[in-house]
Amino acid sequence: MDLPRLRRQALVTLPDWTAAYLQTVPEPNDDIGFIELAVSLSRQNVEHGTGGPFGAVVVERDTCRIVSVGVNRVVPLHNSSLHAEVVALMLAQAAVGSYSLDDPGIPPHALYTSCDPCAMCLGAIWWSGVRRVVCAASTEDALAAGFDEGPVFADSYAYLEARGVEFVRGLRREAARQVLMSYVEGDGKVYNG
Amino acid sequence: MDLPRLRRQALVTLPDWTAAYLQTVPEPNDDIGFIELAVSLSRQNVEHGTGGPFGAVVVERDTCRIVSVGVNRVVPLHNSSLHAEVVALMLAQAAVGSYSLDDPGIPPHALYTSCDPCAMCLGAIWWSGVRRVVCAASTEDALAAGFDEGPVFADSYAYLEARGVEFVRGLRREAARQVLMSYVEGDGKVYNG
Repeated sequence: MDLPRLRRQALVTLPDWTAAYLQTVPEPNDDIGFIELAVSLSRQNVEHGTGGPFGAVVVERDTCRIVSVGVNRVVPLHNSSLHAEVVALMLAQAAVGSYSLDDPGIPPHALYTSCDPCAMCLGAIWWSGVRRVVCAASTEDALAAGFDEGPVFADSYAYLEARGVEFVRGLRREAARQVLMSYVEGDGKVYNG
Repeated sequence: MDLPRLRRQALVTLPDWTAAYLQTVPEPNDDIGFIELAVSLSRQNVEHGTGGPFGAVVVERDTCRIVSVGVNRVVPLHNSSLHAEVVALMLAQAAVGSYSLDDPGIPPHALYTSCDPCAMCLGAIWWSGVRRVVCAASTEDALAAGFDEGPVFADSYAYLEARGVEFVRGLRREAARQVLMSYVEGDGKVYNG
């Protein structure tokens, strides 16, 4: 068969403002600092109109070095898989040069995300090799803003925790929740509402 | 902060053999034909050494037109999110020019996949807007080959079905299972084993 319209590639990009914005921010070195950066990226993404109200950061734990950042790019890039966590994990793996952040010889990594992961992102976390996840807003906050996170259950977290992934939830929750609400009040696009 | 090593983009690509291979295959027009194509893509991907033993196809249901194909690209592209289903959904949305295959004015779409979706892909299906999913090999077959699909439960399927996503499972299961086993016997990389 001949399929001339078949796409053979898709590009995943950060918004143009990211690099310049990061230069204005002091480098964090603890949980509070990294989660505040994830939340501030979510806020910047809303203010620039470059995607949904979600931000994420991947950090090398031993050195506190930032390996990647991500923001939601679903609407502008026509790609429903580009949640902030997935973007950050993809860019971290590209930086490390491996499909796993848990390979032998690779130091441990953590993910900071402005909102509890949806079903897809929990699965992406499982495959990614990050061993620690710190979240701000809750699944309930996302739902209140109109985002249905899909089939995420208490057992989903238990499954990952039993396999060595640590979760810390609710850190700077209120700040992150306010970004979600500001997005809705600004008539931001809520998909799967 | 200055982060000169930060990656700003990642590229998602099909293997080079895809277009030439599709030209050798007759165009399918029913469930059996589309699932056999998904399975044959998984087999080709193993034989070419271009990723894991998984293939997928997105189809416009009314016209039986193929909108995209995908294969697993995790190891070669250093990207643990590039399962066959995610690649196919990303390329379908790029072709349609929308983050949702369920937008008003867009005809209904189906996903054919050579294996039951993992936790991440079930979540990706939920966001993608496909309303019908046809699968070949089972979650148990994947696990027997060493792939732990993550937190997928009977309730995960029930959640999506309750929201209008139809699943047909086990179609051409044995053919797909054989591809999984041939990958393992050929010492293919099994991640999260």
